[in-house]
Amino acid sequence: MNGELSVGIAGLGTVGAGVVRLLQENAAIIAARAGRPVRVVAVSARDRTRDRGVSLEGIRWVEDPLVLATDPAVDVVVELIGGASGAARDLVEAALAAGKPVVTANKALIAQAGGDLAGLIRGGPGIRFEAAVAGGIPVIKALREGLGANRIASVSGIFNGTCNYMLTRMRDEKMEFADVLAEAQALGYAEADPSADIDGVDTAHKLAILAAIAFGRQVDFGAVHVEGIRRISAVDIAFADELGYRIKLLGIARASEAGIETRVHPAMVPENSALAKVDGVNNAVVISGEPVGDIVIQGRGAGAGPTASAVVADLIDLARGRQTPMLGMAPDALRSEASVPMAAHRGAYCLRLMVLDQPGVIADVTAVLRDHGISLETMLQRGRSPGDVVPVVIITHETDEAAMAAALVQIAALPAVQEPPALIRIEQA
Amino acid sequence: MNGELSVGIAGLGTVGAGVVRLLQENAAIIAARAGRPVRVVAVSARDRTRDRGVSLEGIRWVEDPLVLATDPAVDVVVELIGGASGAARDLVEAALAAGKPVVTANKALIAQAGGDLAGLIRGGPGIRFEAAVAGGIPVIKALREGLGANRIASVSGIFNGTCNYMLTRMRDEKMEFADVLAEAQALGYAEADPSADIDGVDTAHKLAILAAIAFGRQVDFGAVHVEGIRRISAVDIAFADELGYRIKLLGIARASEAGIETRVHPAMVPENSALAKVDGVNNAVVISGEPVGDIVIQGRGAGAGPTASAVVADLIDLARGRQTPMLGMAPDALRSEASVPMAAHRGAYCLRLMVLDQPGVIADVTAVLRDHGISLETMLQRGRSPGDVVPVVIITHETDEAAMAAALVQIAALPAVQEPPALIRIEQA
Ligand SMILES: NC(=O)c1ccc[n+]([C@@H]2O[C@H](COP(=O)([O-])OP(=O)(O)OC[C@H]3O[C@@H](n4cnc5c(N)ncnc54)[C@H](OP(=O)(O)O)[C@@H]3O)[C@@H](O)[C@H]2O)c1
Ligand SMILES: NC(=O)c1ccc[n+]([C@@H]2O[C@H](COP(=O)([O-])OP(=O)(O)OC[C@H]3O[C@@H](n4cnc5c(N)ncnc54)[C@H](OP(=O)(O)O)[C@@H]3O)[C@@H](O)[C@H]2O)c1
Repeated sequence: MNGELSVGIAGLGTVGAGVVRLLQENAAIIAARAGRPVRVVAVSARDRTRDRGVSLEGIRWVEDPLVLATDPAVDVVVELIGGASGAARDLVEAALAAGKPVVTANKALIAQAGGDLAGLIRGGPGIRFEAAVAGGIPVIKALREGLGANRIASVSGIFNGTCNYMLTRMRDEKMEFADVLAEAQALGYAEADPSADIDGVDTAHKLAILAAIAFGRQVDFGAVHVEGIRRISAVDIAFADELGYRIKLLGIARASEAGIETRVHPAMVPENSALAKVDGVNNAVVISGEPVGDIVIQGRGAGAGPTASAVVADLIDLARGRQTPMLGMAPDALRSEASVPMAAHRGAYCLRLMVLDQPGVIADVTAVLRDHGISLETMLQRGRSPGDVVPVVIITHETDEAAMAAALVQIAALPAVQEPPALIRIEQA
Repeated sequence: MNGELSVGIAGLGTVGAGVVRLLQENAAIIAARAGRPVRVVAVSARDRTRDRGVSLEGIRWVEDPLVLATDPAVDVVVELIGGASGAARDLVEAALAAGKPVVTANKALIAQAGGDLAGLIRGGPGIRFEAAVAGGIPVIKALREGLGANRIASVSGIFNGTCNYMLTRMRDEKMEFADVLAEAQALGYAEADPSADIDGVDTAHKLAILAAIAFGRQVDFGAVHVEGIRRISAVDIAFADELGYRIKLLGIARASEAGIETRVHPAMVPENSALAKVDGVNNAVVISGEPVGDIVIQGRGAGAGPTASAVVADLIDLARGRQTPMLGMAPDALRSEASVPMAAHRGAYCLRLMVLDQPGVIADVTAVLRDHGISLETMLQRGRSPGDVVPVVIITHETDEAAMAAALVQIAALPAVQEPPALIRIEQA
């Protein structure tokens, strides 16, 4: 606990350069909160010649990041390369095997390999990953420590700023998905290959991590039901508005009698709910616990600054010697609670169909729903135009996912139904 | 770190009984997160015969709480008596002097005697007080640890559920202050002597604590400018609504070139801001930091459950051996930054006058404002009724508090002004 905490950073992209900058700019505050200076002594990235907008003077450059894992001059390895395998994983495994603490922002790695990594930790601080979920929002600390006395009923939220930005733009500007995506890519808010974001995988990584901590069990990324936002169209957003809802890409983890339900999908949330009001690139988390009730935390979920804030918070904890097991409890205290399959979900649904405007279509659709025991709450059809394709929106009462899925197959096969139906779940979030 | 953490609790009222219940009901979860069982071994209150709705079986009853401070069977003293002096303070001082860690929910004590108590801590865990601010919201942990890498620009929020409930009711039901107060007292939301809540003192206690942690300096309760909500009337709320604002009792701590400004007063916040949407007994905190940006945390700020959640979180940290200095940094790292007096504040104001509806009144009022260099943004006068007393509302552009205060004295003295003017500051919160 004496002297400085020496940090080796692998990866000097958005986050890595942000961490170097933050440790320089707020050095005095960080040293005061950490009880000692926190200093970058070595860095590694692919291209040594690249200008990273931060001074690397006096910092050792390492060609092979793996060297950091066993370098006696490095107290902590900060992994900011990214990816669930390859250089990032090799480095983290080597560091943990060498008994060196690791700090990472790598949600893919923790979600997909968290269990294996946990097995490498032999006491000590192990691996910390506050930045992996919701950027600057200290939600992992809140769940593991600040709300540690609570029995968690659910954790849900908006964990992907790219998707939230796109859905916000679609609503504000009445734009179509493809146009907003192109715009977001041009602005750098979405990657050239946007699939990890818009197909919900990134949200699922974060949700799997939060669920493990909230419910005290191993990370189970494979159990997460994942749907993205590609199918959402401007007409869905307009209908949702009319019905008093906003459409958000949510991650939801909920405990029930049957086990833990984890799912990522677009959802309609009431316009006056906490999550409905979270716009643009912001993230938000709602934690429901007994006895604390609902805690809502909102903030920026990505970007150099907020993510670096979380990485350095982990470094401060290490500098102070504050230890918490990876998932908030010792491995042998983790429960082996079942994951509930999506087919067992119950909820209300919004179904949007593109149908030929001709007599009998609605009767055919509602007959299918009736046959599956699904009762309707609202049916909306706007802009009659006989012979053309028009949207029809149906809101159901609470029903079984399995029944809904079966009904959907039959509805999609009706001759008058012209496109695959869009299904959006309704959440009271 | 082996064996159980033995807890002695002094005070078995709302919070004390809540802590006993929580440690029983969530014993397994708490033990898993704490790494060992956390068990109440001794309790103390005034009336041994009183039914507290929890089982005290197997727990030793202590007549004099002071005994807990030196009891070798007690690892931690939990002070839940309340009050800045008397039994609560005696107990905390004795425990710290004996080197025993203390957990408390007592904001009055920390705000008014925090500096003295800090002086009694000789290394070790010292005193913890997550429950003292914003009940179940883990805001102290967020500021000291989760956002520890940030230079904090401001911390503000709604820290008193009683006032927020009353202001919400006044708006929803168009009720007057006195009637809402009577109702809140009947429902148990306000105390028989409500002054600590409605005069802003409770909010000021909490703000003083947050400001100390946010800006890394000693607690300076005396520097907080404090105004309560007694002067707010239904007409103010109606005008605010019309202008697109909500009225909230805010605590605001902000860093400026001149030092730290800390103030508690009713404020008009834009209806689409985060704090405007916090209704009823909820609390919310907005933390602005560099580089994290704005973090908003919302939740229940009082009551047995949320407060116990925070007390037990502190116990879990103690059980795990996680230590943090009282104000997030060692005493010698604290800065001695100046507190900025309220007279140096700059902001926009809403001034509500009750004036005789007669020619020339507005001209007189605006002349006074002009003479003090205060420029008007909006002037509203509703329901003309010559010869009667009518409300007039004036919104100013940003101006000096000192100028405003001087103008107010002159305006109050105008013959046509029939009541002391009500002044509500405008915040962009
Ligand atoms: N960006 C965000 O807002 C954000 C938010 C939360 C979490 N994260 C996570 O943070 C991590 C980093 O993200 P990022 O956005 O900073 O990524 P990035 O900008 O793509 O940076 C990646 C860095 O890793 C380096 N790198 C790649 N392969 C390497 C190798 N084999 N050896 C050494 N260095 C290698 C690259 O070097 P060169 O620069 O030389 O090519 C680059 O500096 C990811 O896990 C991501 O999921 C990011
Ligand atoms: N209530 C909340 O929602 C809340 C929220 C946040 C923080 N807090 C803080 O938590 C603390 C406790 O609040 P509370 O609402 O629980 O108060 P409370 O209901 O009035 O309980 C006070 C307890 O202290 C006991 N007590 C009083 N004087 C004592 C003495 N000399 N020796 C031993 N015990 C004594 C009382 O004993 P008897 O029961 O025998 O009279 C009672 O059990 C206060 O500092 C308060 O500010 C409360």
